Amino acid sequence: MTDTDRLNIDLGERSYPIHIGPGLLGQPGLLTGSLPGGADVMLVSNETVMPLWGARAEAALAGRRVARCVLPDGEAHKTMATLGVVLDALVEARMNRDCIVVALGGGVVGDIAGFAAACYQRGVAYAQVPTTLLAQVDSSVGGKTGVNHPGGKNLIGAFHQPVVVIADTDTLGTLPDRELRAGIAEVIKYGVLGDADFFGWLEHNVGRLLQREPKALGYAIRRSCEMKAAIVGRDEREQGERALLNLGHTFGHAIESGAGYGAWLHGEAVAAGMLLAAEFSRRVRGLPGVDVARLRDLLVRAGLPVDPPRLGAARALELMRMDKKVKAGRIRLVLMDRIGEAILTDDYPPAALEGLLAEAMGEAA
Amino acid sequence: MTDTDRLNIDLGERSYPIHIGPGLLGQPGLLTGSLPGGADVMLVSNETVMPLWGARAEAALAGRRVARCVLPDGEAHKTMATLGVVLDALVEARMNRDCIVVALGGGVVGDIAGFAAACYQRGVAYAQVPTTLLAQVDSSVGGKTGVNHPGGKNLIGAFHQPVVVIADTDTLGTLPDRELRAGIAEVIKYGVLGDADFFGWLEHNVGRLLQREPKALGYAIRRSCEMKAAIVGRDEREQGERALLNLGHTFGHAIESGAGYGAWLHGEAVAAGMLLAAEFSRRVRGLPGVDVARLRDLLVRAGLPVDPPRLGAARALELMRMDKKVKAGRIRLVLMDRIGEAILTDDYPPAALEGLLAEAMGEAA
Repeated sequence: MTDTDRLNIDLGERSYPIHIGPGLLGQPGLLTGSLPGGADVMLVSNETVMPLWGARAEAALAGRRVARCVLPDGEAHKTMATLGVVLDALVEARMNRDCIVVALGGGVVGDIAGFAAACYQRGVAYAQVPTTLLAQVDSSVGGKTGVNHPGGKNLIGAFHQPVVVIADTDTLGTLPDRELRAGIAEVIKYGVLGDADFFGWLEHNVGRLLQREPKALGYAIRRSCEMKAAIVGRDEREQGERALLNLGHTFGHAIESGAGYGAWLHGEAVAAGMLLAAEFSRRVRGLPGVDVARLRDLLVRAGLPVDPPRLGAARALELMRMDKKVKAGRIRLVLMDRIGEAILTDDYPPAALEGLLAEAMGEAA
Repeated sequence: MTDTDRLNIDLGERSYPIHIGPGLLGQPGLLTGSLPGGADVMLVSNETVMPLWGARAEAALAGRRVARCVLPDGEAHKTMATLGVVLDALVEARMNRDCIVVALGGGVVGDIAGFAAACYQRGVAYAQVPTTLLAQVDSSVGGKTGVNHPGGKNLIGAFHQPVVVIADTDTLGTLPDRELRAGIAEVIKYGVLGDADFFGWLEHNVGRLLQREPKALGYAIRRSCEMKAAIVGRDEREQGERALLNLGHTFGHAIESGAGYGAWLHGEAVAAGMLLAAEFSRRVRGLPGVDVARLRDLLVRAGLPVDPPRLGAARALELMRMDKKVKAGRIRLVLMDRIGEAILTDDYPPAALEGLLAEAMGEAA
C-alpha cells in the first residue's frame, strides 16, 4: 500500500476519494468499499478496454449482481445514440434507483456512463475507473459528464459527481503511445495555468512519463488532480475560476470539431490550442517570448502536435463561437501573463484574434 | 392585479416564484421580469398550444431574440427522440449558456423542455408557463423533468428547477374537458394525502372547478402548489416525505404503461390508482370504509374513471416493480390511515397486494 495515494475531493455531501497507484483495481474491497452495500452494478466499458480489464473489475465486484454494457470505442461514438445504449441496458437489467454505474475506460466511457447515471431515474450513483492518463488527470475530477452533438463538443450533459475514483497506474500499461502523449498534454496544462514549479518538474521528467515510470506517473497524476480539485472545489458549477481549466480548449475544441471528431485526440488538440493561446498571450498580454518557446519545446519533446490544421480563420472563429464560455457574443479566452499565471478574459482586440487565426490556420478553408 | 397570487418556492439559491391568476401571460414584464436581462429565449410548445398561446407569449418576450420549437402533442411523444428535437433546435439557434428555455404547454412540454434545459450545455435556465390544470398543480413545483422509456415512465430525466412559473388561469379556457378532469384528480390527491379540510372543500366545490370558475380554480391551484412546495422544500431530492406525492402513482403508472401511453391520461390513471391505494389501505391499514366511499364519490362526480383496465395481476405487478420507489426488491406504496393522512410503507403482506390486483385487474392478461 506504500505506493497508494488517496486524495479527497471535498465537495460537502458530494465528496469522494481518488485512489492513485499501481495494482488498485485488483485490491479487494477498494472499489466495493466505497459503494453502497449490496447495490447492483452496471459495468460500462468499451470493446477495447473490457477484454483487458473487465475481468479484474468483476473480480473486485464479487458478491454483487453485475450486468455489463460494452460500447464501441472512440470519440465518434460519444453521442446521444450511445447514451441510449447505456440507458437501454439499465432498463433491460431492471436496475433500480439504488444501483451503481461503474465506468471502466477512458474519458469517453466515463463521460457517457456518468451522463447515463445522471439521467437514469433522475440520478443514480456512479464510480469511475479511468484507464487512460487523460481520464485520470482530467475527467476524474470535476463531475462533468456528457456527449457531443454534431453542432459542437460536450454540448449535452450534466454535472454529476462520482462516489469514488480508482486511478490504477497499471492500466496505463496497455495504453497506446499516442494516447499517453495526449494525456501528458493535459498534465502540462496544469503547470502552465497555475504552477511554474510543476512546469519545471515536467521539463526535467517528461522522458520518465513517456517511459511510463510508475512513480513519475503517480506524481504527475496526483499533482494534476490536486490542482484541478482545488479549483473545482472553489467553483463547482463553473462560474469563474474553473474556466482556467479550459486553457487551450477554446482553440482546441475548434480544432477537434473542425477536423472531424476522432481525427485529432482531445489532448493533441489541447496541445496545439495551448500554443495558440500562448502566442496570442504574447501579442495581447505581454507573455514573454521565452515562455512561448519553453511551452513549444516541452510539447514537442512530449511528441505532441503544435501546428493546428488549416481550417481557415472564418471556420475556426465560427466553431469558437459555439464555446460555452461565450458571453453576450464575446469569445472569452484563457490567456497567460507568464507560465503558471492564467486569466479568463475577453479584453483583447477582436482583430488580433482574427489575425492570429488567419496566420496559423489560413485565410479560408 | 387583485386576482394575482404570488407563491414563493423556497429552495435556497434555487428559489423561484409561481404567479397564479387570470391574464398573467399578457401582463408586461411578469415573465421577462424574472429572467436574466437580455438572454435569448427558446420558446418550446406543441402543435396544439403554440397556435393558441404562442403569440401572447412572444408578445410578453418582446425585445429579446426568440426562437420557436414546436413539438408533436401527447404523452406518446415524451421520448428521447423528442428531447433530441429540442436539443437540435437549441444548437441550430446557436443558443449560449446564458439562454433561457420557456416551456409553454402541459406537463409533457414542461418535462421535455425542462430536461433539455437541464442537459443543454450541462444546464441552462428555464421558465414554465403551464397551460393545463395538471401541469399548474403538479409539474410547476418540484423540478422534476424527464422523458419516458419503452421500459417505464419517467425513467430518464433530471432534477432542474425553473426560474419562474406563470400559471395563467385564462389558459385553462382552451383546455378540453377530459384534461380538466384529469387535473382535478391531481388536486384531489393533495386533499387525500395531507389536508382533510381541503378534501371537504373539494367535495363542496368540484362543480365550480368543472365550470372553470376562475376564483375556485385559483384557490385549488394555490392550495395544491402550497402543499407540494411545503413537502418538496423539506425533501428536494426525494429521499423520504416527498414520496407521499406519489399517492396513487405506483398503481397509476402501471395502468398508464400497461394500457399503452396515451390511452389513459396521467390524471385518469392516478384517479383509478388512488382508489386502488384506498381500497388496499382499508384492507391492510384499517382505513375506514366510509373514506374509501367518499373518495370514490368525489372521483365519480369529477367525471374520473375509478376502475382500472384488466391488465392481469401478474402484468400489473411486473410494471409496479419498475417503480422508482422499489427498494431491495420491495414495492413501497403510499397508503392512507384516513383521508388527509398518508404514509410510505412496504409493511404489508405481499399476498394481499396480489389478491387486490387479481380482483381489480384480473387473474391473467
